[in-house]
Amino acid sequence: MTDGTGTPVTVIGLGSMGAALADAYVDAGRPTAVWNRSASKAAPLVAKGATHAASIEAAVAASPLIITCLTTYEATRAALEPAAAGLAGRTLVTLNSGTPAGARAMAAWAAERGARFLDGAVKNVPAAVGAPDTLLYYAGDRATFDEHVDTLRVLGGDTVHLGADPDLAALYESAVGATLLPALVGFFQGAALVQARGLPVSSMVRYEVKWLEMIASLLPMLAQEIDSGDYSRPASSVGVFHEAIGYEEELAREANIDASWVEPLNDLVRRAVERGHREHSISALVEVLKKPTGD
Amino acid sequence: MTDGTGTPVTVIGLGSMGAALADAYVDAGRPTAVWNRSASKAAPLVAKGATHAASIEAAVAASPLIITCLTTYEATRAALEPAAAGLAGRTLVTLNSGTPAGARAMAAWAAERGARFLDGAVKNVPAAVGAPDTLLYYAGDRATFDEHVDTLRVLGGDTVHLGADPDLAALYESAVGATLLPALVGFFQGAALVQARGLPVSSMVRYEVKWLEMIASLLPMLAQEIDSGDYSRPASSVGVFHEAIGYEEELAREANIDASWVEPLNDLVRRAVERGHREHSISALVEVLKKPTGD
Ligand SMILES: NC(=O)c1ccc[n+]([C@@H]2O[C@H](COP(=O)([O-])OP(=O)(O)OC[C@H]3O[C@@H](n4cnc5c(N)ncnc54)[C@H](OP(=O)(O)O)[C@@H]3O)[C@@H](O)[C@H]2O)c1
Ligand SMILES: NC(=O)c1ccc[n+]([C@@H]2O[C@H](COP(=O)([O-])OP(=O)(O)OC[C@H]3O[C@@H](n4cnc5c(N)ncnc54)[C@H](OP(=O)(O)O)[C@@H]3O)[C@@H](O)[C@H]2O)c1
Repeated sequence: MTDGTGTPVTVIGLGSMGAALADAYVDAGRPTAVWNRSASKAAPLVAKGATHAASIEAAVAASPLIITCLTTYEATRAALEPAAAGLAGRTLVTLNSGTPAGARAMAAWAAERGARFLDGAVKNVPAAVGAPDTLLYYAGDRATFDEHVDTLRVLGGDTVHLGADPDLAALYESAVGATLLPALVGFFQGAALVQARGLPVSSMVRYEVKWLEMIASLLPMLAQEIDSGDYSRPASSVGVFHEAIGYEEELAREANIDASWVEPLNDLVRRAVERGHREHSISALVEVLKKPTGD
Repeated sequence: MTDGTGTPVTVIGLGSMGAALADAYVDAGRPTAVWNRSASKAAPLVAKGATHAASIEAAVAASPLIITCLTTYEATRAALEPAAAGLAGRTLVTLNSGTPAGARAMAAWAAERGARFLDGAVKNVPAAVGAPDTLLYYAGDRATFDEHVDTLRVLGGDTVHLGADPDLAALYESAVGATLLPALVGFFQGAALVQARGLPVSSMVRYEVKWLEMIASLLPMLAQEIDSGDYSRPASSVGVFHEAIGYEEELAREANIDASWVEPLNDLVRRAVERGHREHSISALVEVLKKPTGD
């Protein structure tokens, strides 16, 4: 059994992301109840047809499916606590960022209150919510996911169930997200180099986009190497990265840019060489990242 | 005037990349002369129809356009030195990686020998050489580029002239390439997290590919912010990254992974907050990377 197109949905938390979620439901013609701590954020949604829940209790009572998008799990529990009794028999879906431990604590909290629970993550920006290609993944009880999948898919066509453990979305969110800051800082480093030469940063964007596509194309093979533990047939070897270490430092010096953040990355490469990985795939760095057990 | 489809081309250096370059010319039906320090690497190309130059002098004499793909500029000069007299009036194109200073030194060396000169970079893997979408960019005299563009385009359909300064390809190569190691290490960190949970790394690849596409989609706006120096309307703020700092550390600890390489990146975020950029776009990190003048 799945919920139907007329099943109401409640969205709690109307920040940048929560407002986009509620908006998608209103656009899809779903009966949508909304609540936000600062009530004024509900106004644009109510103007479009959403129902403003006057209290958190009313928000929970309005729908069998309650979606929250607050900053953290702690904030989510703080906001829901007054309405906790009303959660029994309903489904709670949390869509904030957090750690796997945070997701497990949230799942336990929901279970104690008799709610079914899914934790998910929106792998995109608010403007992408509702698009056919937008990815959201969820973790938790499969039957609960199946029951609400049509409603969840309104938020993004690429809606996935990762598994029954309620912390898997938070785990994948953190694992996948681990590239964001390093990739951006790499781009900013390049931007500073181009700018130091008096050239517009926009002139490097199309090359960088292609470069990221190239990096993406390497991932299936790198993942296979890591899964098999066989690093012996490299497309890009540790040695090639080792030889490149001096270049960037020289260039950063020339352009008066602080490249000290690169040093620990180079150090991982050096340690991989020391551990006999020079002729191995760069994916062997994963072995250097793993601490010896008992460390 | 451009060179024609019958114009011979010489490829010097038949490592992974050089062999792919020569292969593309043989496949395109071009008269192709090849030379490599270890002569045996020429055999597969000769079997396909390339001409084996018996000496470096013969290799240079064979064509008006000489493409080298050795490890470094120094190696390139060492290999070409015996044939230097023969370079006068010919065009030399270097396709190795290196620094802008290295490219300038190479350009000066070529000019002293009366050769016209372009320095380029293949922004892809050897297997992609010859494909319509493969990007190669070149720097140096525009007329020289225009004369040989049809021949150069055999190596990749996306063939670009960056400008007359002969070090621009090396500059963009370094600037664009600055994301590679950080992005990969971010992926390996995520891979180690997933693996510590007993899950296959391949299960995260499709999410990571989408995530890199999402990052790529942010670049035009981030570049515009940096070019304008206006960081005040962030899609992703420094503050959001600042709040996330604790998460990853906690997770790495749980999974027994060495996340110390992330610390200097987090430190850039902290310094950006200290300098008043909390509500600004994450692209404001570029300001933190620039060293004060006179440092
Ligand atoms: N924005 C994105 O691009 C994006 C992308 C993917 C994931 N996410 C994740 O989505 C979640 C929300 O992000 P956002 O960008 O929407 O954040 P935001 O714009 O800062 O909104 C935060 C929301 O949380 C509410 N809130 C915080 N503490 C509360 C408390 N103690 N009690 C009640 N309400 C509380 C706020 O209510 P007030 O309005 O009353 O302050 C607001 O509705 C985060 O976990 C974020 O990591 C965001
Ligand atoms: N492979 C890639 O994915 C890739 C991608 C983009 C750019 N590149 C760049 O392309 C260039 C070549 O890379 P590659 O992967 O082809 O390297 P490679 O497989 O290691 O080949 C290196 C080549 O340089 C020659 N060489 C080195 N020192 C020499 C010397 N002193 N005298 C004469 N020949 C010498 C080698 O000759 P022997 O065979 O005699 O040793 C061999 O032909 C590098 O700058 C690399 O950064 C490579």
